[in-house]
Amino acid sequence: MKRAVFFVSDHTGITAETLGRSLLAQFEGVQFNFNAWPFLDNVEKARQAVTQIDYYAAEDGLRPLVFSTLVNPELRSIIKESQGLLIDFFETFTTQLEAELGAKPALAVGRYHNVGNYAKYTARIDALNFGLANDDGVISSNYAAADIILLGVSRSGKTPTSLYLALQYGILAANYPITEDDLEMSRLPNVLRPFRERVFGLTIDPERLQQIRSERLPDSRYATFKQCEFEVRAVEGLYRSEKIKFLNTTAMSIEEIAATILQQAGIKRRLYN
Amino acid sequence: MKRAVFFVSDHTGITAETLGRSLLAQFEGVQFNFNAWPFLDNVEKARQAVTQIDYYAAEDGLRPLVFSTLVNPELRSIIKESQGLLIDFFETFTTQLEAELGAKPALAVGRYHNVGNYAKYTARIDALNFGLANDDGVISSNYAAADIILLGVSRSGKTPTSLYLALQYGILAANYPITEDDLEMSRLPNVLRPFRERVFGLTIDPERLQQIRSERLPDSRYATFKQCEFEVRAVEGLYRSEKIKFLNTTAMSIEEIAATILQQAGIKRRLYN
Repeated sequence: MKRAVFFVSDHTGITAETLGRSLLAQFEGVQFNFNAWPFLDNVEKARQAVTQIDYYAAEDGLRPLVFSTLVNPELRSIIKESQGLLIDFFETFTTQLEAELGAKPALAVGRYHNVGNYAKYTARIDALNFGLANDDGVISSNYAAADIILLGVSRSGKTPTSLYLALQYGILAANYPITEDDLEMSRLPNVLRPFRERVFGLTIDPERLQQIRSERLPDSRYATFKQCEFEVRAVEGLYRSEKIKFLNTTAMSIEEIAATILQQAGIKRRLYN
Repeated sequence: MKRAVFFVSDHTGITAETLGRSLLAQFEGVQFNFNAWPFLDNVEKARQAVTQIDYYAAEDGLRPLVFSTLVNPELRSIIKESQGLLIDFFETFTTQLEAELGAKPALAVGRYHNVGNYAKYTARIDALNFGLANDDGVISSNYAAADIILLGVSRSGKTPTSLYLALQYGILAANYPITEDDLEMSRLPNVLRPFRERVFGLTIDPERLQQIRSERLPDSRYATFKQCEFEVRAVEGLYRSEKIKFLNTTAMSIEEIAATILQQAGIKRRLYN
């Protein structure tokens, strides 16, 4: 039996999901059936959500869990009437913050995941465009303008990491695609030497690298274990001899890789500060 | 005077920041000074964080706000001793959920933003690669495999939206770069006709489009108001005559655009369900 879970939000629902899922991730072994209700912004939709919550409550004989970031008081009071167990993120903490800050909450919807101001928005899009323009395989990259330059063998996670750094933190991240020539020289390529303090290495276990490459180009030399092992050993040797900080991404999500790099490289975020 | 805010986490800090920033976004007019303490995973770091919190408390004469997703009980008890106002996300809700689910929390760190299982991780990276390979300007795109095909004039938000849809939801999103020829024909390009139910249009106010294009290519015909206005009118005409759903992205963040498309197009997410 799966426990029904509802994410109820006036807006994108991203906060409600992030918070709810991170709490539920602590309960292993419990199966969940997720239902997202973003943009729940009128009485009719709130009533429909209550109908669905109550349906699951009756059908399953178990209270659905309802994670809410609703800000509108009227809609919150409708959801409160449901048979679900309400986890109200807004109500739980807002009274406390109101007292501490001596200020009233705006009760405005979508304050966090909205466009904010255009300058911030533009910084984010610019970072994304920078990441796309300075990704693998581009002949001449604008390394001088980069906040960080990711180094690594093909399929070690450079592209997703640089795009995530751009979208989440507004970081200008360039990639350098390590070639076999670079690996045989076992030194930092000349083009990167002026920027060595901004270079950050990625590595990965050869077994996992082989698996990823095989999905992409099965039966190629590129995807043999021997080749993967050679490249990984060589790139790690290069990182060590050049004293470049590096990270093994094998068991890490994109979020973890990005947050770790941000901390270890000590880069200043361009967004949110 | 800015109020000091701390985000304290055993792991990436993404959940702690999402919680804190979405609550604080309701308090307009209050200025904050944000301090992120991700990967706070030992007693020494916890003590350092307390020292910094107490420093701000004394310096500012105001209690810092401390948003915590710490799971480790020992570290939580250290942070509790600080002079800050502790908003303990984990403690606040876990007891309630434990009782409801009849299960013990794992007390394991980084359960949500970790790699999960490789199949899910691969789906996400595959979606990102799909988005990159099927972005603007690519001659022959794999529209048949796409979950959604975004249509729009240059700089209306297609690329950031498709990459965000991939990273956040695992959606295979392709883009179609509308040309002036397409606009003059005022009909859906032939290559898209077999997939019309998966096409979704983006539009934007001509004033904002001109501003964005001017930052990119100042003094070009591309960035004149006249050209922007012509393209926007023409593409909206095309959407209407072809009965294609569309969205005006002018005042929307990437998160809002993505969440709205997901809902209006009724696409099934490939991740998290």
